[in-house]
Amino acid sequence: MALDRSSLIPALKNVAAQLRIDSIKSTSEAGSGHPTSCCSAADLVAALFFAEMRFDPKDPRQPESDRFILSKGHAAPVLYAAWAETGAFDRSELLKLRTIGSDLEGHPTPRLPFVDVATGSLGQGICAAVGCALNARRIKSDYRTYVLLGDGESAEGSVWEAADVGAMNGLDNLCGVTDVNALGQSRPTMWQHDMEQFARRWRAFGWHAIVIDGHDLNAILDAFAEARQTKGQPTMIVARTIKGKGVSFVEGKDGWHGKAFKKGEELDRAVAELDKQFVSASVNLIQNIPKPPTPRPAGSPKPVAPPAYTLGEEIATREAYGVAIAKLGEADPRVVALDADVKNSTFSDKFEKALPDRFYENFIAEQVMIGAAMGLAARGAIPFPSTFACFLSRAYDFIRMAAISNVSIKMAGSHAGVSIGEDGPSQMALEDLAMCRAEPNITVLYPCDGVSAERLVALAAYHPGPAYIRTSRPKTPVIYANDETFTVGGLKVLRESANDVATVIAAGVTVFEALKAYDQLKASGTSLRVIDLYSVSPVDRDALVRAGRATGGRLITVEDHYAAGGIGDAVAEAVANAGLTVHRLAVREIPRSGKADELLDRFGISARHIVEAVRVVASDRPVGAAR
Amino acid sequence: MALDRSSLIPALKNVAAQLRIDSIKSTSEAGSGHPTSCCSAADLVAALFFAEMRFDPKDPRQPESDRFILSKGHAAPVLYAAWAETGAFDRSELLKLRTIGSDLEGHPTPRLPFVDVATGSLGQGICAAVGCALNARRIKSDYRTYVLLGDGESAEGSVWEAADVGAMNGLDNLCGVTDVNALGQSRPTMWQHDMEQFARRWRAFGWHAIVIDGHDLNAILDAFAEARQTKGQPTMIVARTIKGKGVSFVEGKDGWHGKAFKKGEELDRAVAELDKQFVSASVNLIQNIPKPPTPRPAGSPKPVAPPAYTLGEEIATREAYGVAIAKLGEADPRVVALDADVKNSTFSDKFEKALPDRFYENFIAEQVMIGAAMGLAARGAIPFPSTFACFLSRAYDFIRMAAISNVSIKMAGSHAGVSIGEDGPSQMALEDLAMCRAEPNITVLYPCDGVSAERLVALAAYHPGPAYIRTSRPKTPVIYANDETFTVGGLKVLRESANDVATVIAAGVTVFEALKAYDQLKASGTSLRVIDLYSVSPVDRDALVRAGRATGGRLITVEDHYAAGGIGDAVAEAVANAGLTVHRLAVREIPRSGKADELLDRFGISARHIVEAVRVVASDRPVGAAR
Repeated sequence: MALDRSSLIPALKNVAAQLRIDSIKSTSEAGSGHPTSCCSAADLVAALFFAEMRFDPKDPRQPESDRFILSKGHAAPVLYAAWAETGAFDRSELLKLRTIGSDLEGHPTPRLPFVDVATGSLGQGICAAVGCALNARRIKSDYRTYVLLGDGESAEGSVWEAADVGAMNGLDNLCGVTDVNALGQSRPTMWQHDMEQFARRWRAFGWHAIVIDGHDLNAILDAFAEARQTKGQPTMIVARTIKGKGVSFVEGKDGWHGKAFKKGEELDRAVAELDKQFVSASVNLIQNIPKPPTPRPAGSPKPVAPPAYTLGEEIATREAYGVAIAKLGEADPRVVALDADVKNSTFSDKFEKALPDRFYENFIAEQVMIGAAMGLAARGAIPFPSTFACFLSRAYDFIRMAAISNVSIKMAGSHAGVSIGEDGPSQMALEDLAMCRAEPNITVLYPCDGVSAERLVALAAYHPGPAYIRTSRPKTPVIYANDETFTVGGLKVLRESANDVATVIAAGVTVFEALKAYDQLKASGTSLRVIDLYSVSPVDRDALVRAGRATGGRLITVEDHYAAGGIGDAVAEAVANAGLTVHRLAVREIPRSGKADELLDRFGISARHIVEAVRVVASDRPVGAAR
Repeated sequence: MALDRSSLIPALKNVAAQLRIDSIKSTSEAGSGHPTSCCSAADLVAALFFAEMRFDPKDPRQPESDRFILSKGHAAPVLYAAWAETGAFDRSELLKLRTIGSDLEGHPTPRLPFVDVATGSLGQGICAAVGCALNARRIKSDYRTYVLLGDGESAEGSVWEAADVGAMNGLDNLCGVTDVNALGQSRPTMWQHDMEQFARRWRAFGWHAIVIDGHDLNAILDAFAEARQTKGQPTMIVARTIKGKGVSFVEGKDGWHGKAFKKGEELDRAVAELDKQFVSASVNLIQNIPKPPTPRPAGSPKPVAPPAYTLGEEIATREAYGVAIAKLGEADPRVVALDADVKNSTFSDKFEKALPDRFYENFIAEQVMIGAAMGLAARGAIPFPSTFACFLSRAYDFIRMAAISNVSIKMAGSHAGVSIGEDGPSQMALEDLAMCRAEPNITVLYPCDGVSAERLVALAAYHPGPAYIRTSRPKTPVIYANDETFTVGGLKVLRESANDVATVIAAGVTVFEALKAYDQLKASGTSLRVIDLYSVSPVDRDALVRAGRATGGRLITVEDHYAAGGIGDAVAEAVANAGLTVHRLAVREIPRSGKADELLDRFGISARHIVEAVRVVASDRPVGAAR
């Protein structure tokens, strides 16, 4: 039931005072944190939680509840204080802020049930909010998504990627608030309190912009109401605030960013000031929080038809990826695909053709593509964002935060390695395995043919946590039967005999170089074990050790990737204590344009190099000595 | 001498026709490439090269010459055609486009003398252009910088980071051109030919915007003149163009992105159409290109005073970094520093205080910070961009392109690892070594104390190519004498004896954990070799092997970094064929907030874990078995 303003405003004032007190006390107890960044936002947060959003404090993940993303993650204490105020947990927990035993971390993470995605790397929360808003459409819900940004944060390019994608999709269920407190970490922000700088940018990007005083609760409530009534475009509320608001001796003062009040006199003085700001009020705001409607039952996935290739048929793994996600999408309403204007190269256009409503075009903006996928995943979708593998590096900070969030985004990167040929190094991913393997919880899969591509995409979809699928540009022959089974952490032994002199471990395009090397050596009477390491992280340590021990302790890795952080390192660490020797063939310099085969050879990862490496290791000469 | 329009325009028309023909012929010969993206830009490029810029075709790197950056790098053939047209090289070279023997690659790289930075990852060239324009100020030159963007490219957030930084610095020596051909790779662009969408964005971001018909040479020349006369802000010329302009059967047609004309009838028909577009003209445009003035002599660097610390003094390496760049900057006018609003945490504010004119604030926008550094480095500056190490991941695609460009940017990342403590995982860099080591030409240095920090910064400054310096948040004691010498690719043996049971290889904060472990083990009669691996890439293989062989073949690495791609992998690859065993201590899960010491211990990299690892490896039990 809607409260009238005369009873609502005093109650909200008290909430805001309490949020400020809690933010200050908890950071002082922790000895670090950002109390002044909390104080500027306290009125906005109070209004959002206690007069705007619908949610259940005891079940924050409820699918129909409104979302709140704190894009300015360093204001975490005010977020925690707000949830404590709703009764979600006991206020005494706040004083454990930033301690190793508490989930109330320095910046929010989804260890907490009311956090969708980790924030703290600025400019990301708004991208995730776009994903949450797209998800509402997917599940046909009218829940709204709110996101609180800092003014300094608005310098991040990703914010403007989100602005474009939000406007283009007409996301009127998305409402941003920019807390313009005019002070960054190290100095005043670029535009300080020139509110028009913000408003004209958001308007230029197609948003409805409302400029308000961010400490005027009436204006805040009016702005939220106006946003709710704005159709066909998202709204950005640009709120003029004072950093440290409520504590006179720090209000608007530089040098107070990320600084806790000293316990004792300093803290006491701040709290005493805030204590005086409580006013007479009687309404119970917690009871007044609207509960979300009962969620619709989610559709359950249908079975997916097995791959339908013919052995020897030539198909690029990137194309099989497109086939795979379209099939998955038809079977499971949670599956969605995101593109950055390369859908005809990654073949995600196959998904778009089949399921246009669940295909999200981001144009050439990889950060919001990954960020939106994070928001979608946090709300129960299974998102497949894809682009050229090299351009996923554009979103590495998002991928890092997706790992911290442990959200189930399923990234796919096509055009891996020098095997793309003529386009040259700017289009070649040669560090993507290193990038994704570095994160301890990203599953990294690398198919070499159509069947494994289709199977690995399905595995990735239902394996918990983030995953990365690496695909290749060139067509390669299908080597697996359609009913072949694959597992996360598995590998395939493609060639073996009792007298193999070494094991060659390949993946993707180098599997075929290894098979060529096998044939060549076989002709001269030498036999070789060949492994397809389709699961790059995790790897099957036991199988690698077994193969190594059966082949004279000699492992040779060959990868269309730079030498550091890829397959060679993955294998070497896995077998580190097994007494085996790992010889690595990888790209060891900046490559250049040329034909794919020329490049594989020039940069040391062709069949010829494998044959040479086998001859050298089998004779126990140091690899490379003969060159 | 200025030509009048009546003689200039026909001559430019002919240049444009020739650029189109060359772009089409060269891509057809290559069998791939983007001829239609070249055709839309041909008039703009013709006017820039033959009626606007000052340069010497035989000496494109001349310090006083105007710069042209092709941000839409896939239009490389029109760039190559333009330089051929100036006489920089023979036109017949164009037909070697994209072949392995030619430097005319699929996308431009600085292998070519007229390319400042590699482009082909969209949204980066304009960031580098900001750096080129800042450099003009540094050397007090009036050279101008031009940058050609695609319309699709404008969706990249980095473009808007560059827009902000360009406007904030009032870079009226910077002129952008957006080639609005309305067609992206996979579909029409977001705004197609709605020119106002572009103009209002640039105006909102503080640029002077001029909308023109990009095929009207008079309008193009007028716009360049207007840009030259615009003071206090950069100009963006928003040019309406037709993709494939000049070849009627592809003009404005979707499905022709990145597609060469088929040799034979298709190519012949296109060229025949273009051949008819030549008009009567008599002036020699090459002679008319204004030559740049003679460059001022560059100042030569003065000697830098050695570090001035006391053994045992506590100072964070990030603070020593600030001291070091300020000293270097005072000594060498080429040294500049760039920040992303964390200068008081990275201590780059020490540089700002000493040399405010060569300190470039980018606010919270890491992509343009690295991109501008690339442009500055390409023009002879020695730029030190710095931020929290984790936020360098925001610019990984730029770092990748900096590696391809082999530009001498000197990146510094502070707050590495879990040792930052309470701020939590979003602020901890745990994949930065993996990220930088993956690139084959990035030098990676990691000081542990004030002296090594200062020495390594100076080493990085004058070592060719890109470099990354990793610094830490906590204060650590100075362990090196001020006259200690360091080398790229070196290491320091800190403790050794004739009966060491294992070698512990540490860097940064873990050096002190290793020294603690040494003391503890020493007390119980076990001796240990301790290495400070301050040069992480390259590493001193011989010294590592020597240490391993002298200590029972047992190497233990310990790093405040995730397990993949860091110091463990660097050491393991270096010693791969030496018969040593490498045991790795590293962070193996997503960390959390807590005190620095608690986190080092909780995540397996404290002295306690080193002691345990030494006991286990020395007893030849598998590491971890006792846990």
